[in-house]
Amino acid sequence: MTDHTVAEVDAACVAAGRAAAEFGDLSAVPLAARAAFLRGIADRLDEAAGELIPLAAEETGLAPDRLTGEMARTTGQLRLFAGVVEDGGFLDIVIEDGDPALYRLNRPIGPVAVYAASNFPFAFSVAGGDTASALAAGCPVVVKAHPGHPRTSRRTAELVREALAKAPEGTFAMVEGFEAGRALVEHPAIKAAAFTGSTRGGRALFDLASGRPDPIPFYGELGSVNPVFVTPSAARERAEEIARGFAASFTSSSGQLCTKPGLLFLPAGHGLGEMLDGLTGEVTPHPLLTSGIQDAFAEGVAELAARPGVSLLAGRRPDGGDDPAPAVFSVPARDLTPELWEEHFGPATLIVEYDTDEELLDAAEAMPGSLTATVHAEPADDRLAGALLDKVRDRAGRVVFNGWPTGVAVTAAMHHGGPWPATTAPSHTSVGTTAIRRFLVPVVYQNVPARLLPAPLKGR
Amino acid sequence: MTDHTVAEVDAACVAAGRAAAEFGDLSAVPLAARAAFLRGIADRLDEAAGELIPLAAEETGLAPDRLTGEMARTTGQLRLFAGVVEDGGFLDIVIEDGDPALYRLNRPIGPVAVYAASNFPFAFSVAGGDTASALAAGCPVVVKAHPGHPRTSRRTAELVREALAKAPEGTFAMVEGFEAGRALVEHPAIKAAAFTGSTRGGRALFDLASGRPDPIPFYGELGSVNPVFVTPSAARERAEEIARGFAASFTSSSGQLCTKPGLLFLPAGHGLGEMLDGLTGEVTPHPLLTSGIQDAFAEGVAELAARPGVSLLAGRRPDGGDDPAPAVFSVPARDLTPELWEEHFGPATLIVEYDTDEELLDAAEAMPGSLTATVHAEPADDRLAGALLDKVRDRAGRVVFNGWPTGVAVTAAMHHGGPWPATTAPSHTSVGTTAIRRFLVPVVYQNVPARLLPAPLKGR
Repeated sequence: MTDHTVAEVDAACVAAGRAAAEFGDLSAVPLAARAAFLRGIADRLDEAAGELIPLAAEETGLAPDRLTGEMARTTGQLRLFAGVVEDGGFLDIVIEDGDPALYRLNRPIGPVAVYAASNFPFAFSVAGGDTASALAAGCPVVVKAHPGHPRTSRRTAELVREALAKAPEGTFAMVEGFEAGRALVEHPAIKAAAFTGSTRGGRALFDLASGRPDPIPFYGELGSVNPVFVTPSAARERAEEIARGFAASFTSSSGQLCTKPGLLFLPAGHGLGEMLDGLTGEVTPHPLLTSGIQDAFAEGVAELAARPGVSLLAGRRPDGGDDPAPAVFSVPARDLTPELWEEHFGPATLIVEYDTDEELLDAAEAMPGSLTATVHAEPADDRLAGALLDKVRDRAGRVVFNGWPTGVAVTAAMHHGGPWPATTAPSHTSVGTTAIRRFLVPVVYQNVPARLLPAPLKGR
Repeated sequence: MTDHTVAEVDAACVAAGRAAAEFGDLSAVPLAARAAFLRGIADRLDEAAGELIPLAAEETGLAPDRLTGEMARTTGQLRLFAGVVEDGGFLDIVIEDGDPALYRLNRPIGPVAVYAASNFPFAFSVAGGDTASALAAGCPVVVKAHPGHPRTSRRTAELVREALAKAPEGTFAMVEGFEAGRALVEHPAIKAAAFTGSTRGGRALFDLASGRPDPIPFYGELGSVNPVFVTPSAARERAEEIARGFAASFTSSSGQLCTKPGLLFLPAGHGLGEMLDGLTGEVTPHPLLTSGIQDAFAEGVAELAARPGVSLLAGRRPDGGDDPAPAVFSVPARDLTPELWEEHFGPATLIVEYDTDEELLDAAEAMPGSLTATVHAEPADDRLAGALLDKVRDRAGRVVFNGWPTGVAVTAAMHHGGPWPATTAPSHTSVGTTAIRRFLVPVVYQNVPARLLPAPLKGR
């Protein structure tokens, strides 16, 4: 672990501040050049995939197959943002040729601090979605590497630097270390921050960003419990399918996905315990991302198991060993307290058994902000499903029907966000093309003659 | 002054929280009904203008003519937002009929706290732009009245309540008092806040909003110094016109506009002192909005006058009396310290006299975040003007050319915002139709059958 000093962070940020004016200036770096930089990063990652994937597998414990898919997503989203840049729609140009003549467009907000996540060493790390969308917006980036995969991070940073060799000096840098991360969000040259990680870590950085003499926007994606509400008709007609989908979803990447279904509501007497026990038994346990996550998981699950009404329904209760097996707990809906709505990052989940539709609706009403909420229902339950959807739409960024929340499409329609504690900024997404909006600021030119307008406004 | 108790604030917020689900639901309150509510408020204000304008004049000291214009702007923006609502474009619907099928639209963020300003008793007060845009977004509103015009506020609130008589109970409320304002921003039912006022007051509320267990977005429009950069060619060719425009702009509403030009950069030896003395002498002094503003103005100007290099160039130095006359100070550019970039709310301004283009560009580089920046230049100075525009575009929300920053068009292209300390949220505007974006949150429906989708997504 190479911790960067505060002086090194300062140097990176000052350089990013200097680069900002040029990198964000469409005369100096036209949209086509900006797009080419993004494609250049993707190309270099593709070329180095054979080296990066085994490295990341070694550092994170994630399966090579999963990492291969993640790499494709990472290069895919870099190329997607290259297209967004070329399209130019993100500039959100509005022209009014009246008196006064008003010409508005978006400009980059300035240097962005990106805090890499542990659970996606490519897609939410050094060259992940935050970096891609910030560069697409025209912002220099200083990444704070995640300590869970330092070698993968360093190699990725090298590739990004190579791809940006002809960008203004300072357009990209990476720093490592806890104190470096703190100094980064407080640096005057940094104008926005993006973060994916724990509620605790995100809150601490959010507080620093908000407490600056000049507060900056902090886009944090934090904790999410992703409840799944199964109505009686769905449980009756598709019990096995639901059990299979659920087991696959909550154990995917050892339960270390931000969209892992953490609570599953089933009618009491669902009788799926045995089946879930079989399904979870088929899962090969693998180590969690870091020893910190391992410890927090064991501790959190021990707490969960000790709550009134909670019992182990299927799988094995984690014993603090290295490779925790999946565990399914259950609790009657009448014992559902706010503490049970907490996220457990790892392969554990909680089935809440309800007796009446009212209990189900009350639970939806009590649901905290979440990245996703899922409803399983057959047409016989349309009324109940409609009532559930009405409640969860105000509490989740994405509402899934008869499916599973894991797996997030990187597209224009995606919204990967939600009310606190899912995020610190509910109007914004960290996945999909509109993630670029986090790093844009409008500026309007009033009565400025065409010859002095920035390139995209000239000749409009 | 009727201070509301914390219990009364709680009741208003709880009611707003209850109203939110219905008022924001397009099946319960279709867009046409929401638009009709906004027009109903405008109609009632128009009917009561003959009563409201003299009342506001008495309470604020603002001239009836100015208030008549402000009332037209206020009803105009309510009707403008009615049109925005009917248009539906703000829902920002994105449809992807792939696998998965993703249907995204914006929903209202929830109850909004609106902090009224002192200097616009209509346009930035109880039924002003923040209230109009929040209601347009589908959000209930709890206004914290400004103590500078309590009777105008109460009468306006009555009219709004009448216009919203058929809206869900709790859609609109108004509270008064300092402690009430504090309790409001901390109330769990409040999901966003909008504020126009001083940097100190705005910062205190921003800190409360950010420090909540569940932080909420706080859209504050705070201080702004609005520099005007006059190049040598403009000073040479249009000296008199610039002096006249400047005097009219900085004395408008006794200098109590957020876009008042607080610094004017002129070449040394401009020789406009006598002319400005004559122009400011023609202005009839009138009382400032509140005794607090009066005191802060006298204090701030005394501090300014005592700074090294600062001298009175024209007008009269305020003596702390009731009706301060306009005052123009001057300072050589070499003495331009950060303290001189501070806003003085009231009829005082500072001319900075520069010797070289470099001094002018250095000043633009040192400029803090501001709502506006203005450049005066003739074609002979295109190069210098271009360099100035390149600098100020990153530091101001609106760039004015050969004009004056006071007077803000309420249109789709307007951006009334800027980097800190101009605002707490540089991506957003408090004036113009895009102000609605502050109160919207996306939600995406994944594989939800058409029959269960919200009204605007059905049949797409």
